[in-house]
Amino acid sequence: MNSSHKPAADRRVSTTPLRVGVAGLGTVGVGVVEILRDHAAMIAARAGRPVVVTAVSARDQGRDRGISLAGLGWEDDAAALAARDDVDVVVELIGGSEGPALHLARATLGRGKAFVTANKAMIATHGPELAAAAEDAGVALAFEAAVAGGIPILKTLREGLAANAITRVYGILNGTCNYILTEMRTTGRDFADVLTQAQALGYAEADPTFDVDGIDTAHKLSILAALAFGGRPDIGAIHVEGIRHVTIDDIRFAEELGFRIKLLGVARMTDHGLEQRVHPSMVPLSAPVAHVEDVFNAVVAEGDAVGTTMSQGRGAGRGPTASAVVADLVDIARGCVTPGFSVPAAALGQHPSAPIEAHQGAFYIRLMVLDQPGVLADVARAFAVEHVSLESLIQRGRSAVEAVPVVLTTHATAEAALRRALDVIAALPAVIEPPRMIRIERSL
Amino acid sequence: MNSSHKPAADRRVSTTPLRVGVAGLGTVGVGVVEILRDHAAMIAARAGRPVVVTAVSARDQGRDRGISLAGLGWEDDAAALAARDDVDVVVELIGGSEGPALHLARATLGRGKAFVTANKAMIATHGPELAAAAEDAGVALAFEAAVAGGIPILKTLREGLAANAITRVYGILNGTCNYILTEMRTTGRDFADVLTQAQALGYAEADPTFDVDGIDTAHKLSILAALAFGGRPDIGAIHVEGIRHVTIDDIRFAEELGFRIKLLGVARMTDHGLEQRVHPSMVPLSAPVAHVEDVFNAVVAEGDAVGTTMSQGRGAGRGPTASAVVADLVDIARGCVTPGFSVPAAALGQHPSAPIEAHQGAFYIRLMVLDQPGVLADVARAFAVEHVSLESLIQRGRSAVEAVPVVLTTHATAEAALRRALDVIAALPAVIEPPRMIRIERSL
Repeated sequence: MNSSHKPAADRRVSTTPLRVGVAGLGTVGVGVVEILRDHAAMIAARAGRPVVVTAVSARDQGRDRGISLAGLGWEDDAAALAARDDVDVVVELIGGSEGPALHLARATLGRGKAFVTANKAMIATHGPELAAAAEDAGVALAFEAAVAGGIPILKTLREGLAANAITRVYGILNGTCNYILTEMRTTGRDFADVLTQAQALGYAEADPTFDVDGIDTAHKLSILAALAFGGRPDIGAIHVEGIRHVTIDDIRFAEELGFRIKLLGVARMTDHGLEQRVHPSMVPLSAPVAHVEDVFNAVVAEGDAVGTTMSQGRGAGRGPTASAVVADLVDIARGCVTPGFSVPAAALGQHPSAPIEAHQGAFYIRLMVLDQPGVLADVARAFAVEHVSLESLIQRGRSAVEAVPVVLTTHATAEAALRRALDVIAALPAVIEPPRMIRIERSL
Repeated sequence: MNSSHKPAADRRVSTTPLRVGVAGLGTVGVGVVEILRDHAAMIAARAGRPVVVTAVSARDQGRDRGISLAGLGWEDDAAALAARDDVDVVVELIGGSEGPALHLARATLGRGKAFVTANKAMIATHGPELAAAAEDAGVALAFEAAVAGGIPILKTLREGLAANAITRVYGILNGTCNYILTEMRTTGRDFADVLTQAQALGYAEADPTFDVDGIDTAHKLSILAALAFGGRPDIGAIHVEGIRHVTIDDIRFAEELGFRIKLLGVARMTDHGLEQRVHPSMVPLSAPVAHVEDVFNAVVAEGDAVGTTMSQGRGAGRGPTASAVVADLVDIARGCVTPGFSVPAAALGQHPSAPIEAHQGAFYIRLMVLDQPGVLADVARAFAVEHVSLESLIQRGRSAVEAVPVVLTTHATAEAALRRALDVIAALPAVIEPPRMIRIERSL
């Protein structure tokens, strides 16, 4: 039967609830339980049927989480949720790409039940396998909460922009880094100082590596790129640089040049294959993404029909993440089951990966040089030899004894050529620090 | 059968196409035909089955539209598309809230076929009736293209933010007005001058009333509010002011005060009922919506779980509008049929309407006064009597013979009180022009 001709009964409000098992009762898990309780009537109207939590699993049954667990089934072992007769769909909020989370995913899908997760590491690593298992079972694998929290960007890419060949998708995907960069700019304090503050405020982990070194952004980018370009997530293909080396000087020069520094994850289809990179980027102040500040996330998608779109919102936290999880549950309750990666798992290709050296773009360069005759001529010659065309050059201050900053921006050029020029420049006796390079990301 | 347990066969790629009839072959209709042809394989992969145009209807079969109509059925009468055996879903791009468009909608849904439209006027006027007909037939009524073109904001509100009680939704919904305001600000030219230019560029109609007087924005706002708050669209309840009276002076004072002037449509649930208004608004430069320029649209949605989100993109034109139409077709091809207004038509309430006088907010006021002793005291007294608290006051220039501008901003106050104060101020002998008032819209 043609699916646009389903009988009317399928489309009305049903009294048969979708029964949810929640694995992991941290802040997000508690948020999911709360939303489904507090907004039960509204969600039933939107979902066409009630969506109710029937069972939960966590480490410590006795812990006070600020919500009542009365009337809910309890499992010490998360995987047991999948087997419960009173659970139709499992929400996984345990975390970790392997171990209990992955075991639960396989157990749930293996039993022909839908699976919802916020677990970006697991989806980035095992997403296609799990998507195939979901399709075999004819159930949903949904992971809206895995990328950019409250922003329904996966739904937007997969459904809202389904008419478009995506040419580039990029964004601010880590709130911790955006908070740190925003604070550095507005207070003039350096990275280490702001990181300490972010840790005190709970915006950064005690071990901040995952965030500030770009790994979290890379996980999310791999998922965005998979949806946008119909390929398998490929963390290994991503060039990753974090924000530890961004200095106040660079932030100030950026503003002076009309840019703002953001940690971006960028995926772009090029003649050399799929380019995926995570690094601090200079974005023009005229670009909306430049004005996404503090802990907010944003994703820009460029489609051949729609042009440039941007969505922004909070990328983490109880409310935004639980909002995304519940949205997935509403889709499942309605019977809207789309392939997690836009196309069936079997159709997911492995795009050739464009090496970072093949990247074409403009660059910001900061050199610390001794102000000696001929230095700028030597620098300019090194760029000219590699056919790197300069857009601007600022030398700040004059000193016979101290190094002074020389800041350059280039027109679009091949990264390999730029790197060769920088190698030559770094070897000049008057250049006393390694050149600092930040890529410029222009918007359309 | 539980809808999360559908047999696997339902979820795989099918070879049964969804057959589309397109009524109206203007720029958007041609765009829809082109996208479905040019991206046939990609869309089949995303939709789970091919989506093909089988028949079209327009006024003049012989006209060159830059695409081949060979192999497509032709109907002189659009309504005949609904009756064709080779049409599963009709796309209506005729326009107009009544007449052929409405007739086609009723005919299509009456035959149990899905109906997709970009027709905001018709949906604002007849949306609930058509939604009820669609639900009776168990088919989709979809109108993503009716609001904010390429931005999938209806899907975002209806599905992506389904977990949230929406507290406020607002945005820049008319590209013509945003272009005019952006040009006025960046070039310093006045409204009439920029309007003429916009007409020459095709950004504004020969009769610009619909756009610049806020009517188009009101249509779109009524639909956004319906989805966000689960009520019937209610154009009559919207307070509407256009941009004809925005002056260069106001734009300059706005910048000086840290604001930018945007034509916003705002819907907010208040203690007095649903407040809906369309008017030029001062938005803080710190708000992302302030940086949405030119013909771009943006919608801000505030939800109780997700917080503040914003989506932006092109609101009109062939590509963006066709992108939205095709996205609706992909959903229908997949069998994802959600109620057009988020909840079943029968559940759509009629929210009590909050009068504009009950609006609570901050205001910008510009007075033209003769610089005589005691004028400012009289003005200040008029506000004090109404308990309107001033935030700032700027008097620009001094002249014994000419009027000088006095610009004030208020703290949040009731609009009724503000209006009473302005009535008193307008009657002061030294105030020689009617006071100019622009509401300030703060973001969270």
